[in-house]
Amino acid sequence: MDNENKMLEAELRLEDLELPEDLRALSYAQCRRISKEIRSILVRTISKNGGHLASNLGTVELTLALHRVFDSPQDKLIWDVGHQCYTHKLLTGRLREFRTIRKEGGISGFPKPAESPHDACISGHSSTSISMACGIAEAMRQQGDPHYAVAVIGDGALTGGLAWEGLNNGGKKKLQNLIVVLNDNNMSISGSVGALAGYLRSIRESEDYVKTKQALERKLRNTPAVGTPAIKVLKKTKDSLKRVVMKQATMFEQMGFVYLGPVDGHNQAELEEVLRTAKCYHAPVFVHVKTVKGKGYVPAEMNPSQFHGVSKFDIMTGNPEVSGDDSYSAEFGQELTRLANEDERICAITAAMEYGTGLQYFEAEHPERFYDVGIAEQHAVTFAAGLASQGRIPVFAVYSTFLQRSYDQLIHDVAIGGLHVVLAIDRAGIVGEDGETHQGTFDVPMLTSIPGTTIYSPACYEELRMCLRRAIHEDAGLVAVRYPRGNASKMTFPRDEHNADYAYTECGSDVLLISYGRVYQAVWEAHTTCAKSGYQTSLLKLTKIFPFAEELVEKALGYKTVIFFEESSGFGGISTIFGSLLSQYGFGGRYVRVSADCFLKQASVDALLEKAELSAHAVCRYVYAYGTKS
Amino acid sequence: MDNENKMLEAELRLEDLELPEDLRALSYAQCRRISKEIRSILVRTISKNGGHLASNLGTVELTLALHRVFDSPQDKLIWDVGHQCYTHKLLTGRLREFRTIRKEGGISGFPKPAESPHDACISGHSSTSISMACGIAEAMRQQGDPHYAVAVIGDGALTGGLAWEGLNNGGKKKLQNLIVVLNDNNMSISGSVGALAGYLRSIRESEDYVKTKQALERKLRNTPAVGTPAIKVLKKTKDSLKRVVMKQATMFEQMGFVYLGPVDGHNQAELEEVLRTAKCYHAPVFVHVKTVKGKGYVPAEMNPSQFHGVSKFDIMTGNPEVSGDDSYSAEFGQELTRLANEDERICAITAAMEYGTGLQYFEAEHPERFYDVGIAEQHAVTFAAGLASQGRIPVFAVYSTFLQRSYDQLIHDVAIGGLHVVLAIDRAGIVGEDGETHQGTFDVPMLTSIPGTTIYSPACYEELRMCLRRAIHEDAGLVAVRYPRGNASKMTFPRDEHNADYAYTECGSDVLLISYGRVYQAVWEAHTTCAKSGYQTSLLKLTKIFPFAEELVEKALGYKTVIFFEESSGFGGISTIFGSLLSQYGFGGRYVRVSADCFLKQASVDALLEKAELSAHAVCRYVYAYGTKS
Repeated sequence: MDNENKMLEAELRLEDLELPEDLRALSYAQCRRISKEIRSILVRTISKNGGHLASNLGTVELTLALHRVFDSPQDKLIWDVGHQCYTHKLLTGRLREFRTIRKEGGISGFPKPAESPHDACISGHSSTSISMACGIAEAMRQQGDPHYAVAVIGDGALTGGLAWEGLNNGGKKKLQNLIVVLNDNNMSISGSVGALAGYLRSIRESEDYVKTKQALERKLRNTPAVGTPAIKVLKKTKDSLKRVVMKQATMFEQMGFVYLGPVDGHNQAELEEVLRTAKCYHAPVFVHVKTVKGKGYVPAEMNPSQFHGVSKFDIMTGNPEVSGDDSYSAEFGQELTRLANEDERICAITAAMEYGTGLQYFEAEHPERFYDVGIAEQHAVTFAAGLASQGRIPVFAVYSTFLQRSYDQLIHDVAIGGLHVVLAIDRAGIVGEDGETHQGTFDVPMLTSIPGTTIYSPACYEELRMCLRRAIHEDAGLVAVRYPRGNASKMTFPRDEHNADYAYTECGSDVLLISYGRVYQAVWEAHTTCAKSGYQTSLLKLTKIFPFAEELVEKALGYKTVIFFEESSGFGGISTIFGSLLSQYGFGGRYVRVSADCFLKQASVDALLEKAELSAHAVCRYVYAYGTKS
Repeated sequence: MDNENKMLEAELRLEDLELPEDLRALSYAQCRRISKEIRSILVRTISKNGGHLASNLGTVELTLALHRVFDSPQDKLIWDVGHQCYTHKLLTGRLREFRTIRKEGGISGFPKPAESPHDACISGHSSTSISMACGIAEAMRQQGDPHYAVAVIGDGALTGGLAWEGLNNGGKKKLQNLIVVLNDNNMSISGSVGALAGYLRSIRESEDYVKTKQALERKLRNTPAVGTPAIKVLKKTKDSLKRVVMKQATMFEQMGFVYLGPVDGHNQAELEEVLRTAKCYHAPVFVHVKTVKGKGYVPAEMNPSQFHGVSKFDIMTGNPEVSGDDSYSAEFGQELTRLANEDERICAITAAMEYGTGLQYFEAEHPERFYDVGIAEQHAVTFAAGLASQGRIPVFAVYSTFLQRSYDQLIHDVAIGGLHVVLAIDRAGIVGEDGETHQGTFDVPMLTSIPGTTIYSPACYEELRMCLRRAIHEDAGLVAVRYPRGNASKMTFPRDEHNADYAYTECGSDVLLISYGRVYQAVWEAHTTCAKSGYQTSLLKLTKIFPFAEELVEKALGYKTVIFFEESSGFGGISTIFGSLLSQYGFGGRYVRVSADCFLKQASVDALLEKAELSAHAVCRYVYAYGTKS
């Protein structure tokens, strides 16, 4: 490299480029320069805003390669889970707004078509990309559009059943414009779990394969990648080479895909050659790319799990700014471990969220009863049903939003047979910065519709422990304990009846405020504030939120106004069920329902609670509007 | 075989045996005799009661073999989907009750632990068996129980994502007592779809493999199958033989299973040898069994799809007693075909239920826009989202109960992005003889909880056509049209406002009856009957059931009593939402909700409607109880 080039590279910055168009003209050396800049932006921004660090650091070269080889937005890039889309955002017109990522009014931490034509679809949940790409590719075929649908999926996401369904259909359909890129970082979210991980590792680590790749690359370098006859030679060479060295077809070939790879995901040139080759087949192609999660940032390379999804952290040390010990997740994990010390039947299950759900405490003490099933929420529930059918007590710790994947299994495999399975639903209610795809506002409607289900919603750590004990040892059938993301440190309401289904505080008022879970704190604060200005309110806090005793409805009948504040989608929520019962009991007063009935965009939890009128301020406004001053 | 033995076999009948214990002592010839008797019972009974014929005929020898090689109920036999469990029922104490199968108060058409300890778990939905078996096997391991968990899964069910999640976890866990038996009849419900089917076919049809099998069997026949040293020899021989002849590992070995097969599923001796071999490995084993769906009954062998799930039929010809043309499914299929003639954007998707949903009409005219994705409801929805994102109009025709598999995809892949996807929900409401696992009573709560969803529930064919047209051409976002199993021939209510969201009939009464869908007919009949005895009632029929205009709530406020009859689970159902709105609007009267809130056991649809108080008689009782005589 001469000095002039060195200068050029040193000076070349993302902000000087027309993106993504200019990317194609860059030399590989310039790409390396750009990659470095991107990594620096990623670490700086995520250290402030939180987000998915390790996955994004691992896919910088891959994203550059995709934008250089394909022609977005005509070619559709479909990012599975969206954890790795930050570089894509930087390269498609969102460099300047990038500092607003995951902030209210800023750009989303996930792909979002409303934000850019380069974001082909919404993603945030795992394993959807192949199916989505099949749909897009098929629509293109119907419309005579010669572009490509490219799904980028991690090895973790590949364990999800939806990905299998997608492969099965993509491989059969002979979609000539479908390309699946496996971003194999040998690391699902909580480490490699499942047989597939072992299988992928065997391909990655095969010495044979390195030889194949090198031989192939020598061939590729000597073959121009454009023009049909050259392509034919190239394909033939490649296939026969692979046959000779790999000895057997990969699983993906058995599923009907042309298999290319594995290729080093941090070698720009090799990566792009393979992707260009993928474009030449008139068949669905599966490109296997090896990446290093956290690449380029030492703390993340050392602990990719810890840096999967992060809050703000210190750039130099990688330490998170807020300790994770003061959280519902940690309280849950520690209490479950204690309960399991006393009862050997208790088993803990996670779907690739060991740390997120606080189950690391359980695993440390009871590894033989701990199961990380990978990103496989359906399996987690049916597996739990199997354990329960033999007298074990399985506890599935899962984020509310991901439990949506298990609706049928909860009904069919657990509830119909009355099996005793406990759900520990973390991130229930509003989650904040992750936005629409991650709000935990659907678990309550989902569960109330399933006959025989019991739901608890603790409003503080003591209640969490109490509910968990009851769910495990006192209740039968399907039982859920749901609690929010974050901690309970702000809770100041009086704690006097910690083993009760509810707490009723009568204050001789016209107005009854009902709530449960985190929002009860806001209701309590409003109750105190309003009392100071002469507005009395009575309070009802539900802890066992479903089914609730109908005597509570009878209590409510005596009030002129009943207002229910619910941190959940309201249709099918407790506030709607309560409201209907009021009619059924002949309530003649006024009933007001306040709940989170729409898809809530990203913002801080507090801002969203305010927006959904579930803050103390909002509760006060309702009291002033409907109450009477004494 | 001497004459005495011939006599014995001719005389040997199931009713003379202690089952399942005596099965082990039978000769292969006696097994053949018993198989013949079982097939005869199956055809006779199913021709009267309806049920799953072809799958059961195909697994007679396999079920005998499982009961001879394994020790149920200590060993757990887990029947995926349960479509093939009839022989198992005949062999485990339910021979005499078999004529009551699928009848009210009789035995279930699916495995049911409450019915027999030999039924390890409930099944009725597809692809659950491997996950369930993993849970059972792991519980056994924890408890030091040396028995086996044996999942029996069809090739169709293997296309479901849950099965993949199960394989991924079963293969990794190194469960020493997990055996997965693939009942490969080369035929998912609506014919082989997907890449997996092609792959399995390639194994089945491999000439090489037949040779392996024969060589292996010669070896096996010469090797005693008991005792460790013999087993070692046997395993070694088998593995090396297979390696030589198969050239490459199967996908199932790549997933961590020991692969045995394929073996002829109608050859009792070979089948049992392979199953005995499977017991010898201390690792998860995958046994590949080739069966012929419909085996032994010519009409079913010729048309296995038609005989998958059947109503009553004529034994000699195989013709169904009731024609399928007069059904909501057929009306839907024909209307969608007509709409697609006029609009090339319309695509139709089914998850292995082409005939069940009436899409055969569509496929015949628009094969290039018809997609059978296999048993993969998650993929169906995300695939539809992909099509919709490119301007196609996908219509996913699906049974209500199976749509439960797609809850997360409906939220995450369709609704958040506001994509226009149409659901044609067949078998909505009460389905009758299939019982708890198949009732379509959860789609309404599931859909009302998803922001922005529109739901129609037509009460006759004209309305079905109207709703479908509106859903496709007038509405945006996620739109569902739900209709019941069976036909609309009994509908006699007046049809005057066929393009309206609702029909309101005011009769100057105290009582307002609200309903939608099939049940409106009962309400109409009750209205007429009650009028004759002087009890006037006003009527509100919803066609667009969600969201409904709040003016309807205002109309209801004028009544002393409002009674809502809903053929759905009520929590999260329309009746609960309506009831809550009444409270919110200050209704001072009496509100009564009648809905199907529990898991409904098998019985005829009419009997279940009666039980759920959704029949004309039941409606009359409510009117007499709450109304006043004029």
